[in-house]
Amino acid sequence: MPRLGIIGGGQLAKMTALAAAPLGVEVVVLEKVPNSPALGVVAEVLDGNWDDSVWLRNLAGKVDCVTIENEFVDILSLEYIEELGVELHPGSACLRLIQDKFEQKRSLQRQGLPVAAFAAVESVGELMEFGAAQGWPVVLKRRRNAYDGKGNRTVSGPGEAQKEWDSLHGGRGSLYVEQFCPFTKELAVIVTRGRDGEALSYPVAESVQQAHVCRQVIVPARVPTAIIRAAERIALKAVGSVGGVGSFGVELFLLKEGTVLVNELAPRVHNSGHYSIEGCVCSQFENHVRAVLGLPLGSTALRSPAVAMVNLLGEGRGTGKPQGLAEALAVSGAHVHVYGKRLSGPSRKMGHVTALGVNQEEALLTATRAAALLHFAGGV
Amino acid sequence: MPRLGIIGGGQLAKMTALAAAPLGVEVVVLEKVPNSPALGVVAEVLDGNWDDSVWLRNLAGKVDCVTIENEFVDILSLEYIEELGVELHPGSACLRLIQDKFEQKRSLQRQGLPVAAFAAVESVGELMEFGAAQGWPVVLKRRRNAYDGKGNRTVSGPGEAQKEWDSLHGGRGSLYVEQFCPFTKELAVIVTRGRDGEALSYPVAESVQQAHVCRQVIVPARVPTAIIRAAERIALKAVGSVGGVGSFGVELFLLKEGTVLVNELAPRVHNSGHYSIEGCVCSQFENHVRAVLGLPLGSTALRSPAVAMVNLLGEGRGTGKPQGLAEALAVSGAHVHVYGKRLSGPSRKMGHVTALGVNQEEALLTATRAAALLHFAGGV
Repeated sequence: MPRLGIIGGGQLAKMTALAAAPLGVEVVVLEKVPNSPALGVVAEVLDGNWDDSVWLRNLAGKVDCVTIENEFVDILSLEYIEELGVELHPGSACLRLIQDKFEQKRSLQRQGLPVAAFAAVESVGELMEFGAAQGWPVVLKRRRNAYDGKGNRTVSGPGEAQKEWDSLHGGRGSLYVEQFCPFTKELAVIVTRGRDGEALSYPVAESVQQAHVCRQVIVPARVPTAIIRAAERIALKAVGSVGGVGSFGVELFLLKEGTVLVNELAPRVHNSGHYSIEGCVCSQFENHVRAVLGLPLGSTALRSPAVAMVNLLGEGRGTGKPQGLAEALAVSGAHVHVYGKRLSGPSRKMGHVTALGVNQEEALLTATRAAALLHFAGGV
Repeated sequence: MPRLGIIGGGQLAKMTALAAAPLGVEVVVLEKVPNSPALGVVAEVLDGNWDDSVWLRNLAGKVDCVTIENEFVDILSLEYIEELGVELHPGSACLRLIQDKFEQKRSLQRQGLPVAAFAAVESVGELMEFGAAQGWPVVLKRRRNAYDGKGNRTVSGPGEAQKEWDSLHGGRGSLYVEQFCPFTKELAVIVTRGRDGEALSYPVAESVQQAHVCRQVIVPARVPTAIIRAAERIALKAVGSVGGVGSFGVELFLLKEGTVLVNELAPRVHNSGHYSIEGCVCSQFENHVRAVLGLPLGSTALRSPAVAMVNLLGEGRGTGKPQGLAEALAVSGAHVHVYGKRLSGPSRKMGHVTALGVNQEEALLTATRAAALLHFAGGV
């Protein structure tokens, strides 16, 4: 049987493994944290560090192909796997480009993709210059290791610049700045691109964030068809431009006047595509497995007129076991996903609920109703 | 997290485990055969015999509930688990009744369910008497441990009686005989029944057998609505009558004049319900997990007008790795399931393909096209 190695054993690895199994693909994960979500659904767990050459060699020796579930794996580890002669997808060159968000953005811009004005900043002075030139507010961002709003600060005016610079611990080469985008919606598109460059986009999703964390995903996005087409075209081009192989999340901003800008790429299966498990003929997870193994891609078509996904976030610290599971399962048409994390934390992603519907409102109503009954360490 | 124990680690346990995982349910299997399909997708494997009290106690101590993936587990093992005070579903009394097909049939008949004429036979003489009274041909069957036509013989007339009796090694209490049913179609209905007696039937399926092995399942069955309603009613009553908890397969014969007879019950998830993974809102596997854990059942509604499933059977002895996987995955809309058995054998169930469609013919065409491209130890 083909064997797939995944660096990381979180919920993305879990859902990937669940999609790999029906294809007869066995999964091996490299994950040091005990009881991580994927550990209970894979053929083998390697209990080692992602940056330990012994464990990386061990993983590479057991599988036909290695992939990742998060974009923060050390580039040296990824290059090491490639040097061992094992297929790695996405490849280290692609991941190197994406890990540095400033370089990612430069690359997208060079390919003619629409992005907000941005610049690397080495000092508060350069931040002030950028704000003066582009207009305030601006968004100051870490170039590396930022996610879910962690590592971003909106700077409303010059008076805030020093404070926000210090709060992000700005040091040489670590930050960049972007024009603030007064978007009307955040859109997200999953693109799966094969080893051969064949690429498919999933339906364009509308993503609703609160406090920088994705709360809901609504598909298809409730925007004019011309915007849908533009978002798909931009997403496909963006993933192609970085040479991505596998499923990628492309986050987009929709501005008032109808402009679509690329916010950023996630070089992996993405929260905005979880709806595809039940919502599409072939999910982002199954297509990721197909793509990295060099198999033909499956249809990304929707299986119903609309789909909605609602994230289940931890309400406090405590057990990862949900309260209200029976009540939520009694909501007809709600597909409940509990990741199986051992600990809940405030705003930690503990699971999600998906529902299909004849329209977006119906789907969202079902998903929201079930999600409201589920609690992790709080609420009830 | 809730933990579910499964006695057996074949493809039914694998698909059950894949359905349990999104609910946050961890699965432990008791299975001695190395590399069985489920072993790569469960939290823990107990490498012991099903009739060894040490291993049964070990399993019971690790889980909240035990279930089975095949009906041939020794009743003493099942009773032992119940005596340990662990939930077992379906229970030993139900399984005892079903394991002896003669007793199963008697029980169904007592509840007023329609079955073909049948009788226990202790000798060739009794077989001859039954044939003379009911008319030839008749079907001689083993009371226990028969499946996929193994353990059944059609006896065309009195001249064949001794030969077929001998071929089944008829001994005291081991055989029974049934009237031959000149059915026009074989129907199958999955019923999931909860611990509280709440039961749901899945859409009625038409099952196409060749040489006593299921080849295709077509849903909904192409029969008049009155037959559909009768089949659902009979299936629900049959599973209730044996006190079943979990997903059960109910095999039915449709006779020319429109009569529906119960052929037999399978006290477990069933090949005729594999279509429900993609075809229904909540699959037979997820509903089995929900039922045995005492959780509310999910909707059994179809997700498209029609679904078809085609079994992938081994063509010869050899590796269980499929040939033609890439070609089959290129068939748009085909959902390929490879069980991951290490060895293929003639007519061994190695996987299946499901497809949805606007009608039965379209679904069957897609599934058949993809299935024809997949080969296990033969063909290409």
